[in-house]
Amino acid sequence: MRGARRPDTLFWVDPSRVTGSRLLLDADESRHLLRVFRAEPGLSFDATDGAGTLYHCRLVEDHHGEARAEIVAREAGAGELPGSIHVLVGLPDMHAAEAIVEHAVPLGVASIVFAACRRSGREVLSDTRLDRLQRIAVAGVKQSLRSNLPVIGAVASLGTALASGKPGLRLLADPEGGAISSLLGEGQTVLKKASQPSITLAIGPPGAFDDGEAAELRQAGFLPISLGPNRLTTETASIAFLAVVRNLLLESNLPPI
Amino acid sequence: MRGARRPDTLFWVDPSRVTGSRLLLDADESRHLLRVFRAEPGLSFDATDGAGTLYHCRLVEDHHGEARAEIVAREAGAGELPGSIHVLVGLPDMHAAEAIVEHAVPLGVASIVFAACRRSGREVLSDTRLDRLQRIAVAGVKQSLRSNLPVIGAVASLGTALASGKPGLRLLADPEGGAISSLLGEGQTVLKKASQPSITLAIGPPGAFDDGEAAELRQAGFLPISLGPNRLTTETASIAFLAVVRNLLLESNLPPI
Repeated sequence: MRGARRPDTLFWVDPSRVTGSRLLLDADESRHLLRVFRAEPGLSFDATDGAGTLYHCRLVEDHHGEARAEIVAREAGAGELPGSIHVLVGLPDMHAAEAIVEHAVPLGVASIVFAACRRSGREVLSDTRLDRLQRIAVAGVKQSLRSNLPVIGAVASLGTALASGKPGLRLLADPEGGAISSLLGEGQTVLKKASQPSITLAIGPPGAFDDGEAAELRQAGFLPISLGPNRLTTETASIAFLAVVRNLLLESNLPPI
Repeated sequence: MRGARRPDTLFWVDPSRVTGSRLLLDADESRHLLRVFRAEPGLSFDATDGAGTLYHCRLVEDHHGEARAEIVAREAGAGELPGSIHVLVGLPDMHAAEAIVEHAVPLGVASIVFAACRRSGREVLSDTRLDRLQRIAVAGVKQSLRSNLPVIGAVASLGTALASGKPGLRLLADPEGGAISSLLGEGQTVLKKASQPSITLAIGPPGAFDDGEAAELRQAGFLPISLGPNRLTTETASIAFLAVVRNLLLESNLPPI
């Protein structure tokens, strides 16, 4: 071991590279473990498959530049919220989309769908850009010690997004909306009685959803929630809304101070 | 007026340029109003002085490139929270510091102090960088329709920051902490009975506060609050913590859904 320290980061392992009690990191992750951390056989480290499992591992060998490891223990759902929060956001510019993925993934989002809305002023996200957001999501999963990789999606309209919407509580960021605490009476049911509640948050593109889109959202059962007296950008609203709803989900599981 | 539309943005006016019922925008702001919005005499627009007042104005004239306007009405505290939230953050890299200012200012933060901590691995923010953060703050105030410009500060140690700390409730982001909802019993007093409560949030630098700093924070009365099961970066933790506490402040003032 000669001074190699246990890595404080989580490594990424594709589920296809987990076989029985062994796993094999890909070339990039192996380089990180073997070169940056100078890992030698016997070193303990953790890996996530992004599909719900975190693996506690011990390095067996450097096999032609790929780290082969023994799985010592598996932990299902490590670093995940007691419920799913989906974010449906009107497509903003790429800088803003990156900020949303960068902050929302560590905050435990289950999926982020970017919908090109009528006021988005841009086409559906390209595959290249979606790939870039996906890489930011993987980095976020590793950094935040999650075991699930959120789905990042791109659709050409709000209607398309709603057609494949998730069941559960649906909330819309709306300056004219009410306080989220008013959900807590009813929300006791929605947020706490369900063992794994599902909540979808909708946030408009820069310039907001237009009237037709707002009607579609009402039709789909989205309740208007105010995020306060400030005009927020799409990205700030998305992160703040997620943080607040995430805290409601978590509160029942945290000890008092 | 010939089709000039009422600007949907807030203009910045230095308090020294407000005299009686008149105000004068500086060259940059005037160019924005007169060129981008093609404002002509009579057009209504809003301006903020960053010192607590929002002005509803009517353009009088283009005076050698400076917009001179009549103040139609003044609104004190527009776009401000019903209390003050101060953020004390262990200095991260500049990209992270910019993200904090970019999102925290629209979320209503009263001040942000970046303290070079023992694990920050960098010196106190330079004046150049502080200027840059200040410009981001001004842009955030305008975009979010606030009337107060938050103070952005830089100090060389946590101790220096604590020596000039604000009174009121003090909360520390701490993975070992408790749920913020457990403050609500006591918090009814702290958050609601005070007409303008003051809350300070402390967030560690990348790598967290060290043991000595954690002891200083305890000594100063900071209560440990958990932000959930994920390891968060300094910037994500700062924004999420602010969003959650801000929501607690706002809830009592919002109508039910």
